[in-house]
Amino acid sequence: MIFTRSELRLIGLTVVVTAAAAVTYYAKAGGTIVPFVISGAALALLASLVGRSVEALGGRLGAGATGVVQSALGNLPELFVVLFALKSKLYEVATATIVGSVLANVLLVLGLAFIVGGAKNGVQRFELSGARRVSLMLLLSVAALVIPALTALLHTPAAGHERALSITVSILLLLLFAASLPDSIRKTEADAGAGHDEGHPGEAGWPLWLALTMLAVTGVAAAFVSDWFVAGLTPAITTLHISQAFAGLVIVAIAGNAVENVVGIQLAYHNQPDHALQVILQSPVQIVMMVAPALVLLSPLVGAAFTLVLPPLLLVALLVAVVVAVVAVQDGDSTWLEGGAMLTLYAMVATAFWWG
Amino acid sequence: MIFTRSELRLIGLTVVVTAAAAVTYYAKAGGTIVPFVISGAALALLASLVGRSVEALGGRLGAGATGVVQSALGNLPELFVVLFALKSKLYEVATATIVGSVLANVLLVLGLAFIVGGAKNGVQRFELSGARRVSLMLLLSVAALVIPALTALLHTPAAGHERALSITVSILLLLLFAASLPDSIRKTEADAGAGHDEGHPGEAGWPLWLALTMLAVTGVAAAFVSDWFVAGLTPAITTLHISQAFAGLVIVAIAGNAVENVVGIQLAYHNQPDHALQVILQSPVQIVMMVAPALVLLSPLVGAAFTLVLPPLLLVALLVAVVVAVVAVQDGDSTWLEGGAMLTLYAMVATAFWWG
Amino acid sequence: MIFTRSELRLIGLTVVVTAAAAVTYYAKAGGTIVPFVISGAALALLASLVGRSVEALGGRLGAGATGVVQSALGNLPELFVVLFALKSKLYEVATATIVGSVLANVLLVLGLAFIVGGAKNGVQRFELSGARRVSLMLLLSVAALVIPALTALLHTPAAGHERALSITVSILLLLLFAASLPDSIRKTEADAGAGHDEGHPGEAGWPLWLALTMLAVTGVAAAFVSDWFVAGLTPAITTLHISQAFAGLVIVAIAGNAVENVVGIQLAYHNQPDHALQVILQSPVQIVMMVAPALVLLSPLVGAAFTLVLPPLLLVALLVAVVVAVVAVQDGDSTWLEGGAMLTLYAMVATAFWWG
Repeated sequence: MIFTRSELRLIGLTVVVTAAAAVTYYAKAGGTIVPFVISGAALALLASLVGRSVEALGGRLGAGATGVVQSALGNLPELFVVLFALKSKLYEVATATIVGSVLANVLLVLGLAFIVGGAKNGVQRFELSGARRVSLMLLLSVAALVIPALTALLHTPAAGHERALSITVSILLLLLFAASLPDSIRKTEADAGAGHDEGHPGEAGWPLWLALTMLAVTGVAAAFVSDWFVAGLTPAITTLHISQAFAGLVIVAIAGNAVENVVGIQLAYHNQPDHALQVILQSPVQIVMMVAPALVLLSPLVGAAFTLVLPPLLLVALLVAVVVAVVAVQDGDSTWLEGGAMLTLYAMVATAFWWG
Repeated sequence: MIFTRSELRLIGLTVVVTAAAAVTYYAKAGGTIVPFVISGAALALLASLVGRSVEALGGRLGAGATGVVQSALGNLPELFVVLFALKSKLYEVATATIVGSVLANVLLVLGLAFIVGGAKNGVQRFELSGARRVSLMLLLSVAALVIPALTALLHTPAAGHERALSITVSILLLLLFAASLPDSIRKTEADAGAGHDEGHPGEAGWPLWLALTMLAVTGVAAAFVSDWFVAGLTPAITTLHISQAFAGLVIVAIAGNAVENVVGIQLAYHNQPDHALQVILQSPVQIVMMVAPALVLLSPLVGAAFTLVLPPLLLVALLVAVVVAVVAVQDGDSTWLEGGAMLTLYAMVATAFWWG
Repeated sequence: MIFTRSELRLIGLTVVVTAAAAVTYYAKAGGTIVPFVISGAALALLASLVGRSVEALGGRLGAGATGVVQSALGNLPELFVVLFALKSKLYEVATATIVGSVLANVLLVLGLAFIVGGAKNGVQRFELSGARRVSLMLLLSVAALVIPALTALLHTPAAGHERALSITVSILLLLLFAASLPDSIRKTEADAGAGHDEGHPGEAGWPLWLALTMLAVTGVAAAFVSDWFVAGLTPAITTLHISQAFAGLVIVAIAGNAVENVVGIQLAYHNQPDHALQVILQSPVQIVMMVAPALVLLSPLVGAAFTLVLPPLLLVALLVAVVVAVVAVQDGDSTWLEGGAMLTLYAMVATAFWWG
């Protein structure tokens, strides 16, 4: 048997939900809400499968290449969604999705991991140097976003060169990200070793051909489903009377990115707080240092001019969330109360964007 | 003898000063400044006595209930003052009092504790996990205030729903605060145990009937004195040519809240830095997580609509003060120089609000 | 032989470059760029020599006086440049130079030290208490700059009293700085002891008369060269099409202040991360706590009214840089990747001010 039982269940569910999304999309059936919900669920499931395929592929290529593969391909679903949103001129959704993906990981998923881990295992302690390194990278990457947003907000002379400034910052972020890969590869190797011993969830033992096939199939499927999901977004927004910003910040962000990090919550439950932290916080680092810059450089392909200029409230929410997460992580342990506080903050930010 | 000598002195002084405040208020004697100063002194003394009664009551009810009683009743004087200020339409004073209470504890009282403790005992080290937990709660609670202030400042769509947003945030803060009580109760128990051994100041051995009577008497007296104090505020402001914001931020905040935390400075002097830190920093956490939300929900009772929307300069002063305090506390030790720096920052903030 | 070989080379080079600067200035030769570049190089070299003279003088006067001498005289070149800029009504250059000196030390020099130290010696660990103390002072001093900038930006009532507020804040900063001197003197003593044993670079063994002569000569020369440098600034800006802000933030700041801290990079290379950190971070602390306040108080001498009011983008860049540095330092170790991230952030900030 190549697939484990739980993998088979996940694949089966993904096929069914993706098929349902296809039917509702092409048959224009189910009104405005149902197709949107189904394609969102399909997207989240496909994002999980892409993640698992990338992990399996990395395992086969040798641990050294995992980091590169993971960062290049693991964020494909997220990238597709935002590209389709840009193609549909849903700029506000696109920007909010980027910020929302970071917030969802940093406050929602990390908060849930703290709660679940704390309720099951009491106070959980982190190995400090790893926790500090990833939180510093997160802080630095978010700090980079302050510059373009403020030049635009304050109408400084650079505000007239928004796109040039965004491209410069993007290239600098991508270079820094590329420079950080050797380090994360080495870390991934160490993790993988530790992971095998502890038998952590999500360890896939697929042969190379299967990993490649799964990646190709799920990647292409994610591209299609992203298109359907974005197509269903505008009617759903209208029917539900929510704002574009809320849709991107909460709904698209959770479907496109956060659900796949549920594995981090499982790790916290199984008392592996260090691994949980890496899984949950690597994701927002990759979004800011790779996905967002890639979108800036790729957006002309879909006829859009995406910049790194965030609206002030999103920027501040991002900074506050990251500072809180950094302080919460750097203290070296987590409790369910810290997790509860992070969830509360997430709920407040979401509320502030509720009104259209 | 039920009361200790120092308690008797405190009670006697409080009775005398409160009586003097009553006389000047009802007889409209003493011009514009004297009644205000006397009622402010009476308020600070009563706040101390309320605090001591609550502590004694908690000791009798069993340590488990101390946390609940303390947070429900210990902040009564502060609550009364702001309610009366709201009733008199002194909105600016009300908002500034909330922020000023946090600043006074976080910069002034903590700074003095660092200076006194450092001058007497040299570098003082904290037990890290406790220090980090309370500073994280402080950071999180203040982070929550960023959201409503910014939506209003930036005129985002949510700005039209200021009151609804404030109520949502308030309820979330109160829920989080309630969830945190079991933890602080457990901590209070441990503290109380440690406290008894070390005989820390403020340990009261009153019987239950006395604790209840003292609490009732001082609570009712605090309500009256708060009324007189607020009534004297406007004439005093006019005579002294100070701004409403300065009055609330510095004078009302210190009288209504900070003086009672002088016990924290005594603890630092007696080389109990951990206990000092908890006493001093729990207070601003309670103000942001309980008093401010309670005021939002209770303000309609006095015909006002209090929101959590802070003016930008107050918000930034609050954030800067809390970040500085968090960094100063998380480094695990304190020196008189750190304390001096915090006092300096407090003086600068006060100066910025001096001009009306 | 009084001078070492490397000192002789430095002195010789300084004499030649300073003479060349004098020639181009008085002969009005070399167009608009060459005199500016030459006087900038002369200024950087003189700043190094002033620093070395101060160090030698301190060593002779007894370690106890080093701190006082160093802070009073070591920042002379920086002070001269900004004073001449103020005299020439180049307010934007003056403000940007102050901020740029902090940024250049905190991001550029510290980042380079992390990269060089990390590439040569792998992960470098700091002694935590020293690292935390200097980073806390840095945070506190920068926090003080938030107040005047915001009162001006938000047009609060204090905005009408900009100069009075700046003077108050300046005096408070100077008092705090004076209060911190005994501590840094004690630290300098310990450092000097350690330094002798390890033979760190920059240790000068000049006799008292030589130290005094060198200081007098280099100090006077620095004043002249500052004048030439500022005189060449406006033509160079015009020819190069850069903004005043960029010129101050990057060019003047690096020439007037950052180059002398190259010794910090050498210390990191020789695996003395603690000493490197102190050298690099003391400098921005002195700039904010002494140079900037001194400029506020001295500016009337050159007919200007310098205030501590920073433009918002400079203020935010400063805050972000300092928070990043504090987090990077407080984690207790440094890697080349952290250094790379700090350099990247510096490049982004510089880019944002590129456009005039």
